[in-house]
Amino acid sequence: MSTDTFPIPMIDSPGQPTPSGALAELYQCLEAEYLIPLWTQIADLMPLRPHTKARPHLWKWQRLIRLAEQAGELVPVDRGGERRAIALANPSLGGRPYASPTLWAAIQYLMPGEDAPEHRHSQHAFRFVVEGEGVWTIVGRDPVPMGRGDFLPQAGWNWHAHHNAAAKPMAWIDGLDIPFQYDTESQFFEFGRDAVTDAERTTPERSRSERLWGHTGLNPVGVKSGDGSPLLAYRWANTNAALRDQLELEREGFPGVIEHGHAAVRYINPATGGDVLPTMRAEMHRIASGSETAPVREVGSSVFQVFDGTARVTVGDSSWLVERGDIFVVPSWTAWSVSSSAGPDDSDSGSLDLFRFSDAPIFEALRLYRSERS
Amino acid sequence: MSTDTFPIPMIDSPGQPTPSGALAELYQCLEAEYLIPLWTQIADLMPLRPHTKARPHLWKWQRLIRLAEQAGELVPVDRGGERRAIALANPSLGGRPYASPTLWAAIQYLMPGEDAPEHRHSQHAFRFVVEGEGVWTIVGRDPVPMGRGDFLPQAGWNWHAHHNAAAKPMAWIDGLDIPFQYDTESQFFEFGRDAVTDAERTTPERSRSERLWGHTGLNPVGVKSGDGSPLLAYRWANTNAALRDQLELEREGFPGVIEHGHAAVRYINPATGGDVLPTMRAEMHRIASGSETAPVREVGSSVFQVFDGTARVTVGDSSWLVERGDIFVVPSWTAWSVSSSAGPDDSDSGSLDLFRFSDAPIFEALRLYRSERS
Amino acid sequence: MSTDTFPIPMIDSPGQPTPSGALAELYQCLEAEYLIPLWTQIADLMPLRPHTKARPHLWKWQRLIRLAEQAGELVPVDRGGERRAIALANPSLGGRPYASPTLWAAIQYLMPGEDAPEHRHSQHAFRFVVEGEGVWTIVGRDPVPMGRGDFLPQAGWNWHAHHNAAAKPMAWIDGLDIPFQYDTESQFFEFGRDAVTDAERTTPERSRSERLWGHTGLNPVGVKSGDGSPLLAYRWANTNAALRDQLELEREGFPGVIEHGHAAVRYINPATGGDVLPTMRAEMHRIASGSETAPVREVGSSVFQVFDGTARVTVGDSSWLVERGDIFVVPSWTAWSVSSSAGPDDSDSGSLDLFRFSDAPIFEALRLYRSERS
Amino acid sequence: MSTDTFPIPMIDSPGQPTPSGALAELYQCLEAEYLIPLWTQIADLMPLRPHTKARPHLWKWQRLIRLAEQAGELVPVDRGGERRAIALANPSLGGRPYASPTLWAAIQYLMPGEDAPEHRHSQHAFRFVVEGEGVWTIVGRDPVPMGRGDFLPQAGWNWHAHHNAAAKPMAWIDGLDIPFQYDTESQFFEFGRDAVTDAERTTPERSRSERLWGHTGLNPVGVKSGDGSPLLAYRWANTNAALRDQLELEREGFPGVIEHGHAAVRYINPATGGDVLPTMRAEMHRIASGSETAPVREVGSSVFQVFDGTARVTVGDSSWLVERGDIFVVPSWTAWSVSSSAGPDDSDSGSLDLFRFSDAPIFEALRLYRSERS
Repeated sequence: MSTDTFPIPMIDSPGQPTPSGALAELYQCLEAEYLIPLWTQIADLMPLRPHTKARPHLWKWQRLIRLAEQAGELVPVDRGGERRAIALANPSLGGRPYASPTLWAAIQYLMPGEDAPEHRHSQHAFRFVVEGEGVWTIVGRDPVPMGRGDFLPQAGWNWHAHHNAAAKPMAWIDGLDIPFQYDTESQFFEFGRDAVTDAERTTPERSRSERLWGHTGLNPVGVKSGDGSPLLAYRWANTNAALRDQLELEREGFPGVIEHGHAAVRYINPATGGDVLPTMRAEMHRIASGSETAPVREVGSSVFQVFDGTARVTVGDSSWLVERGDIFVVPSWTAWSVSSSAGPDDSDSGSLDLFRFSDAPIFEALRLYRSERS
Repeated sequence: MSTDTFPIPMIDSPGQPTPSGALAELYQCLEAEYLIPLWTQIADLMPLRPHTKARPHLWKWQRLIRLAEQAGELVPVDRGGERRAIALANPSLGGRPYASPTLWAAIQYLMPGEDAPEHRHSQHAFRFVVEGEGVWTIVGRDPVPMGRGDFLPQAGWNWHAHHNAAAKPMAWIDGLDIPFQYDTESQFFEFGRDAVTDAERTTPERSRSERLWGHTGLNPVGVKSGDGSPLLAYRWANTNAALRDQLELEREGFPGVIEHGHAAVRYINPATGGDVLPTMRAEMHRIASGSETAPVREVGSSVFQVFDGTARVTVGDSSWLVERGDIFVVPSWTAWSVSSSAGPDDSDSGSLDLFRFSDAPIFEALRLYRSERS
Repeated sequence: MSTDTFPIPMIDSPGQPTPSGALAELYQCLEAEYLIPLWTQIADLMPLRPHTKARPHLWKWQRLIRLAEQAGELVPVDRGGERRAIALANPSLGGRPYASPTLWAAIQYLMPGEDAPEHRHSQHAFRFVVEGEGVWTIVGRDPVPMGRGDFLPQAGWNWHAHHNAAAKPMAWIDGLDIPFQYDTESQFFEFGRDAVTDAERTTPERSRSERLWGHTGLNPVGVKSGDGSPLLAYRWANTNAALRDQLELEREGFPGVIEHGHAAVRYINPATGGDVLPTMRAEMHRIASGSETAPVREVGSSVFQVFDGTARVTVGDSSWLVERGDIFVVPSWTAWSVSSSAGPDDSDSGSLDLFRFSDAPIFEALRLYRSERS
Repeated sequence: MSTDTFPIPMIDSPGQPTPSGALAELYQCLEAEYLIPLWTQIADLMPLRPHTKARPHLWKWQRLIRLAEQAGELVPVDRGGERRAIALANPSLGGRPYASPTLWAAIQYLMPGEDAPEHRHSQHAFRFVVEGEGVWTIVGRDPVPMGRGDFLPQAGWNWHAHHNAAAKPMAWIDGLDIPFQYDTESQFFEFGRDAVTDAERTTPERSRSERLWGHTGLNPVGVKSGDGSPLLAYRWANTNAALRDQLELEREGFPGVIEHGHAAVRYINPATGGDVLPTMRAEMHRIASGSETAPVREVGSSVFQVFDGTARVTVGDSSWLVERGDIFVVPSWTAWSVSSSAGPDDSDSGSLDLFRFSDAPIFEALRLYRSERS
């Protein structure tokens, strides 16, 4: 925490006063008093549209998983370090472990038999599993199994630990609003029990949360819910069926998809019908083989992970061929689109499944959200 | 926008793996792939409670106003620079023109006869006048006079210009959510007309906005309101009367004040009963002479300006004697309290009037708000 | 409470089965089991649009006030009878004391020095004063003076009594949702103290409620509000100024009025920006002299009282000349319009001031509201 | 619509003025002017707690179904009569076809191959099936199959028709807010097509609505929803599983049930997390064999239908043995409880399944809801 004075950064922009000795002297006085003129900064501070510091970037899953395996050998999971998680750091964000200015995305890795110790934090979080199984996340002492395609939200301030009950390591993706809470300085953290109990290591097929909140269109009368979704697991079988239904409805001539060949579902809090977490939106998209999505740009940033399939993805000026597990980031007000290569037939085979999370609920709540479709 | 790789910053914290060559090699590989381990960062990223980068700081009004006068001589108000506004830059925020990580506070200054050109932006804004008069802010072509003690909100995306119709210069305070929208990359800006019309330079006693929305408990049936308050001026006479009433009610034994000797009103949007702007809260506090407030800390930051009176203010480890016009910032989760020196008698004389604005609506909307009173 | 069987009422409508002995026998069996066929009732039960049982009706103020005076001589105000209030009973509602199917309107009358004993009830209520002064309504022990043009809401379950501190009798209008709560069977009632204290008989110029909540755009930070408006009096001076401002804005060429020559303000709860009471909307309308309003019909019913001026009012097939104090009812989906006779000049003189209350919040909350303007 | 004057009904209550000739004359004058004194009515109008006009009543399913069969023989389903529905008429509501003052409940019956013609209305509605299958309700041209245990909401103003595709007749229960909309005069109705198309007579296993909205915790991104639930069928298999899960959780020592042995789920609108219809709440309760529920009373009325099992039900002063299909009504502020006879073992066998709908959303929206558990 330095409090030395700093020079006023001079941004080259119109509307500046004529340089003079008196002006230079004034600027020095301002600096000495921790004051900065708006007219020298406005082009940077108040651009015509969001001018993102982040850049589009792609991380290849094969590379991520190999590095996570190595960390599995070298790095224990202990109190203090808390989690064997490796964050995706946007190359343009100055070495901060941020996928985007507001979003954290990491690969987490747990060895057979390992526990990650219990803690809780104000940061809202979720896990998403692109492959593997065998880990239980234990939320409020409720063991929740994790498997391929499952989405597991974790609203702020819930106690949670993880336990790998399988004979194999398992990796998954964590998404949190760490950068947002860090920059707005709103975060709290508390350590819990160092070990989970044997009872919590049991491996029930369904969590208690799913037994209470996981029945379509039915909420329990006897139980209240807090902030964020009380449903702790959204299973792939449902998500897959929902996407398949949308594309079938389109083929039958009925509404459902976002645009031609592009189905999407949003994970929602069954107690509110709104976003699954107060600061993060999560969705699964399916782009039918041979379909192309219209470029869209939105206020706020998103992180995508390819769940299945291959496609060409364009984000701003970048374009990549992506495949299972690959993760890319779409900065604010940057257009993204997907072109799914044509499969052998009209079926879902060859389609691209794309998991997405974003910070849209922040901007919607504060009346700052905008979007534009080309 | 640099995309060179960067070293993983090593924070001294417990739970780190045993150093080894293999670990160093892993860290190098991670760096090369724009990946950063959580366990090396968690102590910084996820502190037990908000660990603010900002620091408490006081800016003296007499110094601010003198520097603004000098800027009035040297710096024209032109398209491009837009406004003769000088921002308070928190000494610990690395030279950014931010009073706190989310809030912008600046002194703006307009010479006799000067206009500030029309523009609009997504940033929510307000003006508050600690002394002087004669400037009209022209919002959506509605000229709104500004005078001592007036609070003038300016919800995002409304066209606005300013015009000094008086024979003397005038200064006031601008508050905006520029840092928040900058860091979350949600900002838009548009230039408007370069000059205001003569009709807009008329100086009606009351704005059209006040004629429509400024009648206690009465909203117009024929007019809709957008985001943010449709009432463009909150006059000092009302604010003063409301504070006086609260302290009198306390003396009569009735509820009203926050705590003994401490009255406060919040500026509200008459169309919602909620905060006057989607991202900012504004309040006026009066601490009776001889009263002391209990230290309070809250998630999020505040900027205060002394409107009248003198007092000792304590913010975290800092403590200052403050007087009219002085501005200080309270960072997130930092306790603040005020001790008003006893006046000659039991009357309001000797009390401290304190204008305050904060980012609380952001955290309330996102379920991240907490506060604690000692 | 009778439980004898009853005949099925036979409504003449299409789609009836061919009469036969078997059918008659079936109908008898149904009657015996407390069963009624939809097909015999649907034309009545489910009309194409609201088919009101109420009718437009006008009560003349001069007649009302004379009868209230006689009641003042003959009827004491006592526990049990509670209030010297005389209800307007719509001529088509079968002798029920209902102005409309949902709304109660009554003239209440208090002699010099009289008290009306304290009670509270779930029914939401308000008072409106067309002439006179001198009565204090004492709400939660807060004495609130009542004068010409004042609107005084009284949300359900607040203790209240009245006291006439003047040397003259005083009359005013009570509006409640008694019929709605009666028919939906949701009402509660509790007796309070038989007498108000001397302290409550003091006659402060302003109620404590107004001192806390009556400052434009400012809510107290230290006080919470319950259901319904915490502001207990809306003064005529404000209402008058708001209406005058709207008509002046129209003359200057700016928006504000509902339609040409027709200003209107809605009384709102300053804590929500919404309707002043959960089940009732209240508004004041001013129709400039020489102006005519477009016929409007809405789901739900309204009661109007002429506050000042004279005009021709048309409600459905009825049309009346109305003057100060006259009260009329507009049933559901019945068009109403007002034609104000031209005054001597362009000023507000000759305009009609019309107080209105309705049940619109019920239908808006339940997504049943519709309206239509000719 | 009569407008003869009517006598003031004299209710025997305290607080009445001393009878006299002058008083009698005053009362005659009031009658002549359509005026009714509050003091003569208050004991009826404003009781200490809801004083229901309805009474508890039980209709036996075996009797209902037999009468519906007879209607099937004698009464065609035609435009004008619209539906072969027979309403349960509370014995104390004066021959009105109302189960309670706000709720309509009817048995509807459709012969093999029959269609009920298309219409729409502002009245919110649902269907619940206690036995049978084979009818498709066609909502907005979307054919929705109906089977035992299914709940099918029908928000106001959606086009709908029915078609019996089976070789057998089918009966079900309709619930609507007809009395509420009738008494508040807010209802609209429109005739649709006289016949459904062959395409709509197809019998897909799942409706399009279920394919879009019936996936747990997932809402379609590409489709908006209006008032009331967009999910048109809530299937018994889900409801059954949800209730079984709650009771199993209780046996395992975890929260979930309302009270010992008493599970309950509420049907919710997946777009809001709130009640399935703006004016009606629907729930399914399961009382484990040998369990007894605590008496509860609530503002507003409910209608229950036994879906399975037998039990003793107590409603106010009435008590009945009930079995599958039996329907009973619980008036406002009347306590109800269920005692399920002990089954042979600890299993779900012997439990009572109880479908319920009520008008609670009306009172919650208007801040009039209260409840009390003994």
